[in-house]
Amino acid sequence: MNFTQRLSQIIREQDSLLCIGLDPDIRRIPAKMANSADPLYNFCSEIIERTLHTAAAYKLNLAFFESEGSKGWAALEKLIQIIPDTVLTIADAKRGDIGTSSEMYARAILDKLNFDAVTVNPYMGKDSVEPFLRQSDKGAFVLCLTSNPGNRDFQYFRDGDGAKTLHSHVAKTVLGWNQNENCGLVVGATQPEELQSIRKAAPELPFLIPGVGTQGGDLKAAVLNGTDASGGLALFNVSRGIIYKSSERDFAEAAKREAETLRDQINEFRKMKARS
Amino acid sequence: MNFTQRLSQIIREQDSLLCIGLDPDIRRIPAKMANSADPLYNFCSEIIERTLHTAAAYKLNLAFFESEGSKGWAALEKLIQIIPDTVLTIADAKRGDIGTSSEMYARAILDKLNFDAVTVNPYMGKDSVEPFLRQSDKGAFVLCLTSNPGNRDFQYFRDGDGAKTLHSHVAKTVLGWNQNENCGLVVGATQPEELQSIRKAAPELPFLIPGVGTQGGDLKAAVLNGTDASGGLALFNVSRGIIYKSSERDFAEAAKREAETLRDQINEFRKMKARS
Repeated sequence: MNFTQRLSQIIREQDSLLCIGLDPDIRRIPAKMANSADPLYNFCSEIIERTLHTAAAYKLNLAFFESEGSKGWAALEKLIQIIPDTVLTIADAKRGDIGTSSEMYARAILDKLNFDAVTVNPYMGKDSVEPFLRQSDKGAFVLCLTSNPGNRDFQYFRDGDGAKTLHSHVAKTVLGWNQNENCGLVVGATQPEELQSIRKAAPELPFLIPGVGTQGGDLKAAVLNGTDASGGLALFNVSRGIIYKSSERDFAEAAKREAETLRDQINEFRKMKARS
Repeated sequence: MNFTQRLSQIIREQDSLLCIGLDPDIRRIPAKMANSADPLYNFCSEIIERTLHTAAAYKLNLAFFESEGSKGWAALEKLIQIIPDTVLTIADAKRGDIGTSSEMYARAILDKLNFDAVTVNPYMGKDSVEPFLRQSDKGAFVLCLTSNPGNRDFQYFRDGDGAKTLHSHVAKTVLGWNQNENCGLVVGATQPEELQSIRKAAPELPFLIPGVGTQGGDLKAAVLNGTDASGGLALFNVSRGIIYKSSERDFAEAAKREAETLRDQINEFRKMKARS
């Protein structure tokens, strides 16, 4: 089964398009836990345990683990092992380097850590992404149009009166890399019109859609514009809005309730789309 | 002293523009050492010890350390501590994420690991790079025109008959981010004409120039086109061409000889430029 088929199956079986982002910041973890021997692992494992029924995927943000050095990386190694294959695991790593170095990143993330998917940066082109695409059952979500303010600096680059933007060129190029049906795109929810036009340009690619939580993107517009014709093939990521819903000892219970609410809202909007 | 001043001072004191790239691949380390308890550390520390007099900087490629998981990250933590401040340390990480995540990467690389500089990817724009620029004595080399074949896919993107390419737009934009005099550019040696025009557009930025070794870029053209008017402000990186010069037990001695040769060749070409 290739990556796109796996994603579709998991979405169906979990009845969810929710991706829960694990960005464990030691300064935002309840104090008692933050002082424990393995705070990142303890915090994330509790969240996973309580939310496993709500999500299609977990996206682990490598920046937050690396910020704790080799101990953080060891927490990542332990965490990835407790996530069952009923959900997808995505390493939010935004890697990309010359071929020989990207091979090492792919080895680190897809082989050693055994993630199902990884986010990658397109700037260095095909040979920088290709090592992440060699296993057809594992996928790479390529940054296309991101959800942050800085997306204006280069992703909308166009020369003169040309109609083509860099992000649309990326979307089209990635379509050409999809021989193994394991390419996806990262498209932020903060620009609903562009999300719609990128979905039109790439109807068969899985989308990883950040920006609907703390970053302020509208969830309904994101679901209507970002899913495929059948209301699927997209993951909506919420990180801080779920994992820091409560800053107290009940954080995992609060995360569970918020994740259930988001899953249900997303499902309502996708039914709306499928009916239309 | 800001980053650009520090770099200039180190270049002067070491009388070298050579950057030695540490890409320790466990499959290319002499067998006996590869089976030791801490192969990446042992291999790199021997190289560093023998080549310290030849280089202005060491560039540690994080992909190769991550490929060994938390043990590789621990080797990185040990290695960075043995490099004295007579040379610069550059984390070749090519990171870049939304602001809050880039902050964590900056914390991991510039604070915890205490690197002097880091390579970053511009695709996500200003807020993704800014966290790496907050300390004026530490620098960020932003990918501009890379040395790999995939550079054609997006870095030359231009619409219609426009004269401006994405990489020239990146160079110009990064100039505007240089308030703290701690921005640099990564410009590959494999396109000497573009290297010349980017140097003309950004005469005051430090350049990190890969691609002169195994990747085939011409060293003389790279030095003449990539240094500033006085024949400085550039680092020429060679990784595999130095560290794997010998695959036997004499690898560190072979690396030393090759590094001395390269340093001297670069210095000859820069004198040629300063005289012209």
